[in-house]
Amino acid sequence: MNLLVVVKVLGMLLLCEAVAMLPSLVVALIYGENTVWAFMISVLITASLGLLFFKVKVKENVIRYKEGFAIVTFGWLLASLMGSLPFLFTGALPSVVDALFETISGFTTTGSTVIQDLEVLPKSLLFWRSVTHWLGGMGILVLALAIQPALGVGTFQILKAESPGPISSKLTPRVSGTAKILYRTYLVITVVHIILLAVGGMPIFDSIIHAFGSVSTGGFSLKNASLGAYNNVYFEIVILIFMILSGINFSLYYFAFKNKNLRDFFHDTELKVYLFIIALYTIIITININGHVYHSLAESIRYAAFQVGSVITTTGYVTANFDLWPDLSKALIVTLMFVGACAGSTSGSIKVIRIHLVFKYIQREINRLVHPRAVKAIKINNVAVQENILTNVVSFFMLYILIFSFAALVLLTQNLDLVSAVTASAAAIGNIGPGLGLVGPSSSYAALTNVAKLLLAFLMIVGRLELYTVLSLLFPQTWKA
Amino acid sequence: MNLLVVVKVLGMLLLCEAVAMLPSLVVALIYGENTVWAFMISVLITASLGLLFFKVKVKENVIRYKEGFAIVTFGWLLASLMGSLPFLFTGALPSVVDALFETISGFTTTGSTVIQDLEVLPKSLLFWRSVTHWLGGMGILVLALAIQPALGVGTFQILKAESPGPISSKLTPRVSGTAKILYRTYLVITVVHIILLAVGGMPIFDSIIHAFGSVSTGGFSLKNASLGAYNNVYFEIVILIFMILSGINFSLYYFAFKNKNLRDFFHDTELKVYLFIIALYTIIITININGHVYHSLAESIRYAAFQVGSVITTTGYVTANFDLWPDLSKALIVTLMFVGACAGSTSGSIKVIRIHLVFKYIQREINRLVHPRAVKAIKINNVAVQENILTNVVSFFMLYILIFSFAALVLLTQNLDLVSAVTASAAAIGNIGPGLGLVGPSSSYAALTNVAKLLLAFLMIVGRLELYTVLSLLFPQTWKA
Repeated sequence: MNLLVVVKVLGMLLLCEAVAMLPSLVVALIYGENTVWAFMISVLITASLGLLFFKVKVKENVIRYKEGFAIVTFGWLLASLMGSLPFLFTGALPSVVDALFETISGFTTTGSTVIQDLEVLPKSLLFWRSVTHWLGGMGILVLALAIQPALGVGTFQILKAESPGPISSKLTPRVSGTAKILYRTYLVITVVHIILLAVGGMPIFDSIIHAFGSVSTGGFSLKNASLGAYNNVYFEIVILIFMILSGINFSLYYFAFKNKNLRDFFHDTELKVYLFIIALYTIIITININGHVYHSLAESIRYAAFQVGSVITTTGYVTANFDLWPDLSKALIVTLMFVGACAGSTSGSIKVIRIHLVFKYIQREINRLVHPRAVKAIKINNVAVQENILTNVVSFFMLYILIFSFAALVLLTQNLDLVSAVTASAAAIGNIGPGLGLVGPSSSYAALTNVAKLLLAFLMIVGRLELYTVLSLLFPQTWKA
Repeated sequence: MNLLVVVKVLGMLLLCEAVAMLPSLVVALIYGENTVWAFMISVLITASLGLLFFKVKVKENVIRYKEGFAIVTFGWLLASLMGSLPFLFTGALPSVVDALFETISGFTTTGSTVIQDLEVLPKSLLFWRSVTHWLGGMGILVLALAIQPALGVGTFQILKAESPGPISSKLTPRVSGTAKILYRTYLVITVVHIILLAVGGMPIFDSIIHAFGSVSTGGFSLKNASLGAYNNVYFEIVILIFMILSGINFSLYYFAFKNKNLRDFFHDTELKVYLFIIALYTIIITININGHVYHSLAESIRYAAFQVGSVITTTGYVTANFDLWPDLSKALIVTLMFVGACAGSTSGSIKVIRIHLVFKYIQREINRLVHPRAVKAIKINNVAVQENILTNVVSFFMLYILIFSFAALVLLTQNLDLVSAVTASAAAIGNIGPGLGLVGPSSSYAALTNVAKLLLAFLMIVGRLELYTVLSLLFPQTWKA
């Protein structure tokens, strides 16, 4: 392990984070909040530590897989540690564990909260909370790479460890270029989203908060009842559309823009499966809740579609307390937690392409039993998927199930009941936010034990960094020279 | 598909089943029960249909995989249809669905029951019920093959489709020989088991019933409270030991006997993992229930060990209502439902060797990320496992999870709550018996809807025949010439 290069990159990262704290300081000044000094100290500490790290003399400027994995994992942890400072210094979350939970939940775009009353929080702190979402959404490291393409060699390794999904199509030869394109797309979508909400009558501050939460598929709101507080169909439609758009592979936008047509866009297998799942789940849940919970079909569709879109994209905004829905709908919501949206998007969980490949893989195996000599390649978008990618995908699927199950068992030792433990584990590793029961849409994670909170925060990072990245660091051989 | 040969083998199978009904007729005569005529008609119908099928003229005496799959699947279904006749004719279960559920539960060694009061049932019917377990345990087809090795070519295909577990070691060149060895071992274990129970004071009839239920890892009892009705530590220890012994790969017994030593026996990786899991789960559950549910450590160990042994071997005998245990213990019992005992045993579920290989597979994938060029073979008992076996194993694992999840969702449409639906699905596909909630250890499956009963019965067969066998028949290409 080339530790010095890891430290140097982490330094760059912290410097970027310090800069990213400045807008929250501005918000504090605008609204004349007494959080000004808390943000100033936070910026100072983060920048100083960043500078200290960045000044490290690197002997060998090489980044391999191992270093890439270490940079992303420790990057996320360190950014969360520094990012929790404003919560601590303002006294909003006096417990270190709570502050860390909230910040990790933010940076991993999970959206679970330990804050029981959001509506008394200073605006600057609400803003910083949502900024962590927005930064996490595209990956603060991609951001750092787009601004500071200093390392040259090996940076693609970091992107590989970071970018969600098994098949990454290299958009442009240079990583910094790729990062810049992704970053600009993300910025444009965010701005359009803010404008559309504001035009519909949502206060501009609220519009920014919710746009940050939906384009990052994070889900932090500034209302205790989440989006349900507005009870506004227009807001719900706008946010639903942007959650779904944020769940699409961002490289599809790039190619649609570059080729000036949408042909490839709608021919993408993963996108088609993704939209199909949303439609199917919305229909089944609508039928299931119509008449039981809601009295008109329009109302049932409205609540079913929003909740399905929110959970599959792993955002976690809610307009209805789905914990009160019939068991079938609740169970369907739980299965959606294991799907996630498309690879290369800001969403978490397993991802549609992996689920699709798992089905194809099983289908091929059944075929092989009938025709032992006919082993066909599995194709996606008319291209054969390499066998080692398939191996990676099925390992990922199984590992995901095993880690989720193990964490649920541990949570049962922490005063959580069966349903709450299982859904808390699924919601954390899938970066969703709300679960069922004690951690349902109408409650917060505040009442959990510190052990439960730390475990869930760890799961969020493991899920966000797609399991392997973090787990490879647990192997001794990763650390050998 | 060579349908004629399939029909001929099914005919042999039915003839064997008719013979297997005779002991129950004898029981009816001994106890002077009015079930005599019901058994006589059942034997007559089964034998006639068997003869009709067996008389079919076969043009081409070839059995390939496809025919093998068809024989086992339809064999199990047909045997269950005929086996349900005594329940119908005696009026014990007037509903066709109930009679079929009970018989499929018997032949698949699941042990779930729709009979609410077992203790009023005629002895002959209780006996037939347990005979279905005993026949199912070793596979009525293996039995048929051992008695009637008439087909010669291709019979190994049937055994392959039938025998549980991914790695089958061909014991002797001829299948009929293999079947005979397995069958004798099974017979010896059963007889020793009956004697040990009877010597301890259990009535001889009860001893036979419980021995049939434990060596087949089935779990049918003649008491409503299952084994708990006796409240006898000696019986519990004997049955626990025989359940665990029946969960061991039967070829290990053969080799131990042939080589006249136990060296290979205790060097078997799967056996070691199996015993380790039993020990680990017993310890954790003991700690969890001690003081909460039971007042002495001895009592806690007694109940923890028996329930762990019963569920991991997929038997389903109970001496404690684990539905009243703390959530952690309940959840651990549920995870055990997905383990099962060793391949090549009479147990169901995923099997220890597959779970072990899944862990090894994931571990290798994580290693490969750190050392991309070092792909090592996975070894079991110092022998490298072929890659196509690994592919088969991981597909199996994922398919199992997917079928289980889908079935649980369907059960939710049938008035089952979340926990009952999930555990009923797991208990059926894993051939275990009791679940939690509505289908917990103290209740029966009687109250379920017909749709739920038929789905669970189908799951039992899918699980018993290790998924692929049944599912390959759903593919059109299997049926093409």
